[in-house]
Amino acid sequence: MNNASIITLLTDFGLKDTYVAELKGVILALSPHAVIVDLSHEVIPGGIREASFLLSCSYRYFKPETIHCVVVDPGVGTSRDIIVVRTNHYYFVAPDNGVLYEAVKKDGGGKIYKIDIEAVRHYLGWGKEVEGTSVISYDFKLPPSSKTFHGRDIFAPVLSLLASGYSPALFSTKCSKMEELKLPKPVKKQNTVHGIVLYIDHFGNAITNITPNLIKKEDELFLVNDNGPVSIGKVRETYADVDIGSPLALLDSRGFIEIAVNGASAADKLGIRIGQEVLIKEKGLVNKN
Amino acid sequence: MNNASIITLLTDFGLKDTYVAELKGVILALSPHAVIVDLSHEVIPGGIREASFLLSCSYRYFKPETIHCVVVDPGVGTSRDIIVVRTNHYYFVAPDNGVLYEAVKKDGGGKIYKIDIEAVRHYLGWGKEVEGTSVISYDFKLPPSSKTFHGRDIFAPVLSLLASGYSPALFSTKCSKMEELKLPKPVKKQNTVHGIVLYIDHFGNAITNITPNLIKKEDELFLVNDNGPVSIGKVRETYADVDIGSPLALLDSRGFIEIAVNGASAADKLGIRIGQEVLIKEKGLVNKN
Amino acid sequence: MNNASIITLLTDFGLKDTYVAELKGVILALSPHAVIVDLSHEVIPGGIREASFLLSCSYRYFKPETIHCVVVDPGVGTSRDIIVVRTNHYYFVAPDNGVLYEAVKKDGGGKIYKIDIEAVRHYLGWGKEVEGTSVISYDFKLPPSSKTFHGRDIFAPVLSLLASGYSPALFSTKCSKMEELKLPKPVKKQNTVHGIVLYIDHFGNAITNITPNLIKKEDELFLVNDNGPVSIGKVRETYADVDIGSPLALLDSRGFIEIAVNGASAADKLGIRIGQEVLIKEKGLVNKN
Repeated sequence: MNNASIITLLTDFGLKDTYVAELKGVILALSPHAVIVDLSHEVIPGGIREASFLLSCSYRYFKPETIHCVVVDPGVGTSRDIIVVRTNHYYFVAPDNGVLYEAVKKDGGGKIYKIDIEAVRHYLGWGKEVEGTSVISYDFKLPPSSKTFHGRDIFAPVLSLLASGYSPALFSTKCSKMEELKLPKPVKKQNTVHGIVLYIDHFGNAITNITPNLIKKEDELFLVNDNGPVSIGKVRETYADVDIGSPLALLDSRGFIEIAVNGASAADKLGIRIGQEVLIKEKGLVNKN
Repeated sequence: MNNASIITLLTDFGLKDTYVAELKGVILALSPHAVIVDLSHEVIPGGIREASFLLSCSYRYFKPETIHCVVVDPGVGTSRDIIVVRTNHYYFVAPDNGVLYEAVKKDGGGKIYKIDIEAVRHYLGWGKEVEGTSVISYDFKLPPSSKTFHGRDIFAPVLSLLASGYSPALFSTKCSKMEELKLPKPVKKQNTVHGIVLYIDHFGNAITNITPNLIKKEDELFLVNDNGPVSIGKVRETYADVDIGSPLALLDSRGFIEIAVNGASAADKLGIRIGQEVLIKEKGLVNKN
Repeated sequence: MNNASIITLLTDFGLKDTYVAELKGVILALSPHAVIVDLSHEVIPGGIREASFLLSCSYRYFKPETIHCVVVDPGVGTSRDIIVVRTNHYYFVAPDNGVLYEAVKKDGGGKIYKIDIEAVRHYLGWGKEVEGTSVISYDFKLPPSSKTFHGRDIFAPVLSLLASGYSPALFSTKCSKMEELKLPKPVKKQNTVHGIVLYIDHFGNAITNITPNLIKKEDELFLVNDNGPVSIGKVRETYADVDIGSPLALLDSRGFIEIAVNGASAADKLGIRIGQEVLIKEKGLVNKN
C-alpha cells in the first residue's frame, strides 16, 4: 500500500455531471489500489492554456511516479493522438494537443509514447488478439457503449495499466515529438518588462507570467487598461502591506508575480481579464513615460 | 483490499455545506476500508428525475458489487420508506421515491428490501435489543442529535453494513414492489419521432431521450421552440463536423442523441430548457410539414 | 489499514484552482495511508465565523483520532501562529485566529500547541539540524518555492506527522491559550429571545443560533426585516407541515432552529442575509407587540 499509485485528474468536465465519476469507476474497477486526486475539474471548456498553466504549477507537489492525467480536449473525435510522457519523475497522460508541453519541459527528460488503442483494449482482454502478446486478465469489462467517451473508455484503462506497473511501451509506440504549446513569456524592451495575466484564481488574484528575477526592488508594476497603464505600485511582501481594499503586486505561491486586492477580488475590483497586459518599469523610467 | 467495497454517492446536497462530509465521516467510522466516489452532489434540489437519469447512465461504469446510494429526497420527514435493491450486479440504496426505478430495470433482477431503522440501529449497537439477533460491535456511535439527518444517520450506517458484507435481509424486510418513476420515452407518430430534452450537462449539451435505433441516416432533427420547430440538421459523427459556433445533433457517450453547439453551450446559444420537445423527421417528410 | 488516519480539510480555497490538490499531494507523499475527506472548500474567502460554525457542527461525525484541519486565514503572511489542539477525541490544526474555538470548547479538554516551523522541517529532513533530535527520514522533499503557501508547505507536513502517529510535542510548544472567537449566542429579554441567522446552506435554509431548549411549543418565530418583524409561525416538525412555497421554522440536523421554505430557497424567497435578527415570542406576547 505504501506503493499505491497516485493518479491525478485535471479536466474541464465540471462536477455537475457523472463524467468524472465514470472515469474513476473504470480506474478503480481495473486498479482497486489506485489513489485518485482531483487536480481540478473546473478548467474552462476546451481551455488548454489554462490546463497547461495549472498542471505545470502543481505536478511537483505529488510524490515521484505519480500519474498525472489531463482530459481537456477541444479536438475530441478528431484524429489527434493520446500520449503518455515519461519524464524524470512522473507519468503524464493527455491528448496530444500541447497541454503537457510546459510541465514536461519543466520536469525534463520526457520520453513520448503514442497510445495504440487496440493494444490497450487487448491488454485488458477487451479487444481482439494481437500477435505475440499475452493478455492481462481483468474481470471488469466496459459495458458496450454506443459512442466512445475517451476519458472513460481510453484514458481510464491507460491510467489503470500504468498504475498496475505496466510499461507504456507495452501498449504504445515511442515517438520523437509531441505538440508544443508554449505559454507566453515576458519580454524586456528598453527597460520595461512586458508581461500578461495568465490566470485568475478563485480569490480573484490575477497571476501574471512575470517571475521575480525580472524585477528590481524599486520597480513599479502597471496594469494596462483600455485607457492606459494604471500603477499597482512596487512588489510587496504580503497582502497586509497595503490597506484593506487597496491593490498590490506580490509574489504568489507558484513563483509568479500576482496582482491582488487586500481582502477582495482584484479581478472584480480592477476588471482584470486573462491576457491583459502588465508592465514592470524601472523606477527612474516611470515619470518619463 | 482488492475486495474493498466501493460506495458511490449521488445527492442534491451541494459542496458548500458539510452534509456530504458528515455522511462520509460516518461511513468511514463504521467501515474504514470503504472507497467512496462522488457521483454528483449538484443534482437540483429535489430533482428525482435528474438523479434517476444520471444514475441510470453511470452505474455500470463501476465494478460489480459496488453500492450506489442516492439521497435526493423531497419527501424527507414524511413516511416514505428507505429501500435497498439488489440487482444482477449492484446494490442500490435510496428513498423509495422512484429514483432507482430506471437503473434497477436496466441492470435487472432487482430484489427489493425496505429498511427497518430499528434493526439497523440494533446491528450497530446503537439501538435497543431486538429479540433473536446478536449485535455487531462497533466502536463508533453517532453523537446524540436533536433531529435526524437521514443521509448521515440512516443511509450512512446502511451503506456501512452492506460494505462490511452483511446481507440486507439482516436489517430489512423483503418486499414485492418499489415506487416506479419512468423517464419519458420517445413516441413515433406518423413517421415523426417525438422526444424531449432529458438533461443539460456542464458543457450546455442538451441530452434527449432519443436513441439512435429510432433514426435513419438521412433523418433531420428539430428543436421545438415557442415559434415552432427549428432544424438542427442530420445526426453527425463529431463536433468538428460543423463550423465553430454552429449547432449539431450527435450521439452522446450515454447512448442518446444530444443537441450541441461546436465550441459553445447549446443551452445558452439556443435557449434550450429541460423538457423541451425534439422531433426527428424522415427526410421526405421535412418539406411537407 | 483499520487504523489509517482520517484527515479532514475545511478551507476557502474553492475547487477551481489546484490549491487543495497541492495540499493533498504533499500529505499523500508523506503519509500514503492517510484518508483525506473534504469538509468543504467553499467557505467565503476569509470567512472565519462561517468556518467555525461548519467545523463545530460537523467534527463529531468522524471517528475519534480524526485530524481536522482548517485553512481559512485572512492573516496569512502576518505573524499569527499555527496551532494544533488535542481535544478529548480529536486533533485540530488551524491558524490561531479563533476558528477552532467553538469546536474545541464543544469537544472539551483542549491541549494547545504552537507549531515550530523549523522543527517541522527538521523532522521531515527538510531543514537544518536541531540539537538533540533525530531526523525522521522521508523520501519526498518539497520543491524549492519562491513563496511559501502555508497550506501546502506547513499545514500539510504537520498533518502528515500527526497522521503518522508523532506527538505534536515533537514539533511544537505547549501553550496555555488560543485565540477565542465566540459565535454570537441568543439573548432572552422580557420573554423574547433575540437570535441571528448564522449560516445559509446550499438549499437556502437560514440556520439561526437558537436552540430548541429556548422555545416553548406555542411560541412564534419572527424574521426581522427592514420594515419590522415578519411572522414565520410556530416551529414545525417537517417541511411538509406547510404548503409548497410557504415559509416555516423547524429544527435542523445540527440542533439549531432554521427558517426554510417548503420546496424552495428561503434565502431567495424571503431575502434573508447572514447576521439578520430573528425573534422568538411567547404566544401571549405576540399581539401585544
